Amino acid sequence: MEPERIASIVDFHYINDALTREEAIALLKERRAGQHDRLENLRVNGLPAYTTSAGWIGFSDEKISRLCDEALAAGWTHFKLKVGGDPADDQRRARLVREKIGPANKLMMDANQKWDVEEAILRTRELQQFDPWWMEEPTSPDDILGHARIRREVPGVRIATGEHCQNRILFKQFMQAHAIDVCQIDSCRLAGVNENIAVILLAAKFGIPVCPHAGGVGLCEYVQHLSAFDYLSVSASLENRVVEFVDHLHEHFVDPVRIRRGHYLLPEQPGYSIEIYPETLRDYSYPNGRIWRDAR
Amino acid sequence: MEPERIASIVDFHYINDALTREEAIALLKERRAGQHDRLENLRVNGLPAYTTSAGWIGFSDEKISRLCDEALAAGWTHFKLKVGGDPADDQRRARLVREKIGPANKLMMDANQKWDVEEAILRTRELQQFDPWWMEEPTSPDDILGHARIRREVPGVRIATGEHCQNRILFKQFMQAHAIDVCQIDSCRLAGVNENIAVILLAAKFGIPVCPHAGGVGLCEYVQHLSAFDYLSVSASLENRVVEFVDHLHEHFVDPVRIRRGHYLLPEQPGYSIEIYPETLRDYSYPNGRIWRDAR
Repeated sequence: MEPERIASIVDFHYINDALTREEAIALLKERRAGQHDRLENLRVNGLPAYTTSAGWIGFSDEKISRLCDEALAAGWTHFKLKVGGDPADDQRRARLVREKIGPANKLMMDANQKWDVEEAILRTRELQQFDPWWMEEPTSPDDILGHARIRREVPGVRIATGEHCQNRILFKQFMQAHAIDVCQIDSCRLAGVNENIAVILLAAKFGIPVCPHAGGVGLCEYVQHLSAFDYLSVSASLENRVVEFVDHLHEHFVDPVRIRRGHYLLPEQPGYSIEIYPETLRDYSYPNGRIWRDAR
Repeated sequence: MEPERIASIVDFHYINDALTREEAIALLKERRAGQHDRLENLRVNGLPAYTTSAGWIGFSDEKISRLCDEALAAGWTHFKLKVGGDPADDQRRARLVREKIGPANKLMMDANQKWDVEEAILRTRELQQFDPWWMEEPTSPDDILGHARIRREVPGVRIATGEHCQNRILFKQFMQAHAIDVCQIDSCRLAGVNENIAVILLAAKFGIPVCPHAGGVGLCEYVQHLSAFDYLSVSASLENRVVEFVDHLHEHFVDPVRIRRGHYLLPEQPGYSIEIYPETLRDYSYPNGRIWRDAR
């Protein structure tokens, strides 16, 4: 789509104090340079991704260890660990993953909103020794100023958030307040493609990488398109950009994501890749689908 | 209730960087002084209120003029005008109301989220000549930093918001960012009495008056209790504090608000005053109630 057409699907109301339609169009025009090379790069190499599958909080150390080995063997280079449990457990698990993946691979940590602001500062400082590539959702996703303070008071740790931010106005403020280093859009939390594009454009204006949240039912299928669009038309860069991947429920999709050596391969079918098989919809329908009947 | 008991119903998670449980208890203890006198004052004089009924945006100048006369005759001293329409219309209507009510009475303006941030600054400056007692919801209710900028760039006009703020974390930030002069809790937007009390305590900590939003079905009935509690136990002051009133649908309530000369009289029945008559619930039930059947 032409820059003017892309800009026309964005609602600049409430964000034009940070990004005007004219600025967006100028940015999109400028970033067209090299688009064909970027598309070729995507076709050959795909989009860099990270795995969340190895580090869920309920997993035993043995299981985390085994999953790290498997992920390393499959070519993953970016690993996410859930934190926000008992501080000593968090540190033991972080040490375990760091030792398994080595110093060169990236370890992101995700607190899933567990901490108060001052607690988040303390905990993030404690975990800094394990070289987190980012700390995600250290506190309430509504707390722009809280994130800004955590970021300010734990220099050296990049702060990520966004999967629970409901609109472009929240994201605008996270960027204006210097509260985040990583912008984690969610294709379904935000109001569709249009609102996601608004946030992707804001992030480009502020120079903040977009690393979409994924992993829910179909989220990986959705967000690969947003990141491909971001790379091709907006940010024009893959630096510090990775798409979340969780290996979960893809078998229910007609056009599931395809992962190769820690990268999403570019989808080849038209559409947003989130059509669910009719058999799945039928079998899982509540309360009369086969799965529910069998579970009684 | 004892201060410790009041504090025990508040969730300080995510707000204790601004207000701790201990600070809340200390504040509540300190504010007990004079509580009996304040209760006596409420019994005699009631809670100061303001009327929104005269200034809706669809009203003709003639109607606004007549409603102002009626409200003045009924003893109202605080009047709210809806703005955010055509700028020339806004100014003409503001001039009309200011002329009707005179310089001593208070005129609040409410833009109901209509403007972008920079537009809000411009419009509020234009309307400043009519001496607004506050400008309400000048932009998106999610835009804490936008409100802060508007407030900073239009000195002399107090900024109000809150009826669309969903939780204590938003209010905490509006206060931390010096974004509001008036805190407009909504009894139903926030998660019940507990979350409202959290915000009332935060407002007391920051020295910001709470002026509840009301006017919807039963909102006036609800919020009178919150303001009475605020005055009796938390702020201990009525200065700059008024409760919204809209004369609308009270006839459906078993224990409706009672207004006398621009004041809410203290409720005399136990409870939250929002029981609806069974006949109302029956007659207005969709789609088979009498009102809906008759409307076909």
